[in-house]
Amino acid sequence: MIPQTIRIAIAQVNPTVGDLEQNFQKIVTNIDLARQNGAQIVVFPEMVLTGYPPEDLLLKPDFVEAVEAYTTKLANASDGIVAIVGTVHKQEQLYNAGLVLQNGSVKAYYHKERLPNYSVFDESRYFHTGHQQLVFGTDPLIFGVSICEDIWVPKGPPDYQAREGGANLLINISASPYYQQKGAVREQLLSQRARDNRAYVVYCNMVGGQDELVFDGQSLVFSPDGNLLMRGKLFEEQLIVVELDYSHCLADNSPTTVKQPRSDQSTIQLVELEPLNQGLYSTAPTLITATTDPVVEIYKALVLGVGDYIRKCSFKTCALGLSGGVDSSLVATIAADAIGAENVTGIGMPSRFSSSHSLEDAELLARNLNIPFKIIPIEPMFQAFLATLAPLFGDLPTDITEENIQSRIRGVLLMAFSNKFGALILTTGNKSEVGVGYSTLYGDSAGGFAAIKDVPKTVVYELCRYRNKIAGYDVIPERVLTKPPSAELRENQKDSDSLPDYGILDPIIELYVEKSCAPAEIINQGFSADTVKRVIRLIDSSEYKRRQSPPGIKITERAFGKDWRVPITNKYH
Amino acid sequence: MIPQTIRIAIAQVNPTVGDLEQNFQKIVTNIDLARQNGAQIVVFPEMVLTGYPPEDLLLKPDFVEAVEAYTTKLANASDGIVAIVGTVHKQEQLYNAGLVLQNGSVKAYYHKERLPNYSVFDESRYFHTGHQQLVFGTDPLIFGVSICEDIWVPKGPPDYQAREGGANLLINISASPYYQQKGAVREQLLSQRARDNRAYVVYCNMVGGQDELVFDGQSLVFSPDGNLLMRGKLFEEQLIVVELDYSHCLADNSPTTVKQPRSDQSTIQLVELEPLNQGLYSTAPTLITATTDPVVEIYKALVLGVGDYIRKCSFKTCALGLSGGVDSSLVATIAADAIGAENVTGIGMPSRFSSSHSLEDAELLARNLNIPFKIIPIEPMFQAFLATLAPLFGDLPTDITEENIQSRIRGVLLMAFSNKFGALILTTGNKSEVGVGYSTLYGDSAGGFAAIKDVPKTVVYELCRYRNKIAGYDVIPERVLTKPPSAELRENQKDSDSLPDYGILDPIIELYVEKSCAPAEIINQGFSADTVKRVIRLIDSSEYKRRQSPPGIKITERAFGKDWRVPITNKYH
Repeated sequence: MIPQTIRIAIAQVNPTVGDLEQNFQKIVTNIDLARQNGAQIVVFPEMVLTGYPPEDLLLKPDFVEAVEAYTTKLANASDGIVAIVGTVHKQEQLYNAGLVLQNGSVKAYYHKERLPNYSVFDESRYFHTGHQQLVFGTDPLIFGVSICEDIWVPKGPPDYQAREGGANLLINISASPYYQQKGAVREQLLSQRARDNRAYVVYCNMVGGQDELVFDGQSLVFSPDGNLLMRGKLFEEQLIVVELDYSHCLADNSPTTVKQPRSDQSTIQLVELEPLNQGLYSTAPTLITATTDPVVEIYKALVLGVGDYIRKCSFKTCALGLSGGVDSSLVATIAADAIGAENVTGIGMPSRFSSSHSLEDAELLARNLNIPFKIIPIEPMFQAFLATLAPLFGDLPTDITEENIQSRIRGVLLMAFSNKFGALILTTGNKSEVGVGYSTLYGDSAGGFAAIKDVPKTVVYELCRYRNKIAGYDVIPERVLTKPPSAELRENQKDSDSLPDYGILDPIIELYVEKSCAPAEIINQGFSADTVKRVIRLIDSSEYKRRQSPPGIKITERAFGKDWRVPITNKYH
Repeated sequence: MIPQTIRIAIAQVNPTVGDLEQNFQKIVTNIDLARQNGAQIVVFPEMVLTGYPPEDLLLKPDFVEAVEAYTTKLANASDGIVAIVGTVHKQEQLYNAGLVLQNGSVKAYYHKERLPNYSVFDESRYFHTGHQQLVFGTDPLIFGVSICEDIWVPKGPPDYQAREGGANLLINISASPYYQQKGAVREQLLSQRARDNRAYVVYCNMVGGQDELVFDGQSLVFSPDGNLLMRGKLFEEQLIVVELDYSHCLADNSPTTVKQPRSDQSTIQLVELEPLNQGLYSTAPTLITATTDPVVEIYKALVLGVGDYIRKCSFKTCALGLSGGVDSSLVATIAADAIGAENVTGIGMPSRFSSSHSLEDAELLARNLNIPFKIIPIEPMFQAFLATLAPLFGDLPTDITEENIQSRIRGVLLMAFSNKFGALILTTGNKSEVGVGYSTLYGDSAGGFAAIKDVPKTVVYELCRYRNKIAGYDVIPERVLTKPPSAELRENQKDSDSLPDYGILDPIIELYVEKSCAPAEIINQGFSADTVKRVIRLIDSSEYKRRQSPPGIKITERAFGKDWRVPITNKYH
């Protein structure tokens, strides 16, 4: 007996928010490629046509019209194939939609039912809740389409599509942002959904950076018994073709016509498709990309996030201050990996307080990376500021004011370089510093993109060691990784003068920021009460700095950014 | 016949987000004052205990616990009175709640049903939807309690409370942020609700500034025939006592016990209260604060917004650059009105491109306001930067780089003043500039609070003229109001070199930003296509600057801030 199989292409692509024409072309190219590979169905990510998240572009009527104008063009590209394309759909209200196309026609719009409005998501701001469940029939196959969050909730649309609609294939189109090891969470969940419903699960996720978010791809296919059949690449575009044998899962889930409504607002309906093209009956190879170490995963996230921000914002080059410290060394390395060493300029800006090794280490790094390196001493400007302010400051003691002036001079120099040469400035603050406000507003925080703002200092070291390991030598000089961290804004300054060891600071920040723990809970984990209270006070009181800091790549469950909406005026401590 | 009257105190107070103890004390003080004034019911704004909006503080379990710990203490303060207090309530899920207290007991929590998740609001991020409608009976009076948005929607909770619950008094507790002339919108709406339901409407609104929002008070009472009986003060705390004769509105709306459910999830229930204290049968005076001119209203909004930001963030003083231009003159005047002239320092930072009148006008303004004035010329630093950058810049022509350096030197100087003396820096950019990015990031946009960031340039002039008028002389020198606006960052520079006249720019910004109009719609209003396209391109491409700008006071329907969530990476133009 010839197995009843279906060949599905999963297009994990990297769209750009608002670039409708380019996104459309990318979709059409992948539809064509899917067809050439004998696929009968091709699946794209959630909102692939608009990019995700388009945020308040969705409040512009002309944007929504411009998006919808592509519907016919997309349909015209669907000859001989079923294409499932994420977009938005206006039907009195606006919906996050999955467009189902076949042979030149729009067969249906599926409207997302579960709208995430937590964490970085604001979908209730834009979308109405879909109420109509659909399954798509093409005898004898029945499949359901759902969108991202729909499959994350128990008893959600896919369960309904399987149980009431008879679907034996559950297709989920997603734009699921990355955080460290989220892949494992997804896999456990999707495997469960497949098992529970005795249905295949085909999960197509987006790839690419969009402001603070980065999408990791890693599309997935699970068999009806919950086994992983396919894992797509990490942080790379890919058209994946899989072949599913569904003959054995037709017994229980038989096709349906119209079922009972789930509630007063929700019904399920069968959309009959035209016969599928003849599939190719040579089995497509099974592709399971290996999972990666968490540190590798983060490094790749940062490289794609930085690269996409630079490219999608139409910059060609970037620059950053190289202090000889570990943070700027890592950011320079990421940038060189992202856009090519020749497009990254390192700028050393030594001061009277810089150690001799600082400039040496910065120069060595630049040489190792083969990036252009410039040196601009800040002393003349520092002297001018001190002399000018002397009459105003009188006998007042030197304090953090003078430290900040140095940092801000560097900010002015970097921005002057940016203005004159058109380079995007990358800032180099890590999550530990951004968390406790150990940075100078308009100084080291000045720049367009904060590459490692969500990377705790302890992880910064791990990333450097990983990068050195794959290079096979110390691209980032060993001394950078072993000397005690210092801002070098006064004589013999060390981070440890002001902050607890990063090995203590980082878990406190994680518990407070990512886990929303109360101070008492953190203390109960074995940290000193004084340290915990001091760290929390620093985090709370530096909100005003974070509010004015550039966006950067989210790599943890909760980053400072869209998922950290804390009032500045706030007396709760 | 003795009229059946009830005396209600409306406490439009100014809480501080997160300052639970101070907010609690303020509530108790007002309950006591209401009791002393013979009130039988006292009403507070939405979430008065937490302040509004507490944003992600609501995601901290310890914050919610700390808030709920005040419930008993609040109940204990309610002897001999019914107190309706806005707070949050955790009952498995979190609700935006109205706590109804009487004689030491918690009689009920009303849970807000309609959660705004548009504009500046994110309530679906935090709260679950209330489903239980309540009316409160104290023979023969029946009143309903609803929260803010509940009364804005047709067929919402108040309508239901009146029609199904028999309420003849609809109490709405609000934290309704100000924008220009919102009061008129509210009055029309509430009058309609009163008329439709033949019920009194008592509307208690919050007062005060919270980051970018300012609450205007202007609490209201409408009679069952929709007539305005009371309007509270604008932008001022006030305990208002009103006396309502409800004997004539008992015929149609008779008390009820338990009514039919409105849907499967929603029921209405009567909560029986204990007998009210004997009311005072001398009629309380009717108070209708006059409405004000839009310009006066905006000026008051700015004064309260600036003052509350400074006070609630625990600053005592502020400082700003005084250029002799109209924007900084207005901000200095607002600041002096907000926190006292002696607490505001003006800093003149002349450059080689400053006109002679610039420093004169700044000094005259400072003298008129009686604020301290300092002069710090920027030339030494400018020379140091130019000389230091010369080898790097080589023969490249002078361009915007050198303009920005000057502006950024001023930013560094102001921040040095702030660091040394503890003054908050106010920035002086207006909405027209912030809109088109006519500002220097880390330069004139450097500071903690952007007082007039939502005020279009044309309105800046109106505000100055208004302030001069009430002063009875030109506090803001006439020349400031008549000379052509200039950033003075190069020889003979004028704003009009780079931008359309503000009389053209401001309406384009309003149409694009506040009304979400497409370019074609704006052009159809009679603006030149080239101008419209240029302005929109400037707005779109300066998103990265706005993302790093300080918060400022919302005075229009849509300000750059929480209600402007536009991606930086964005190819839609």
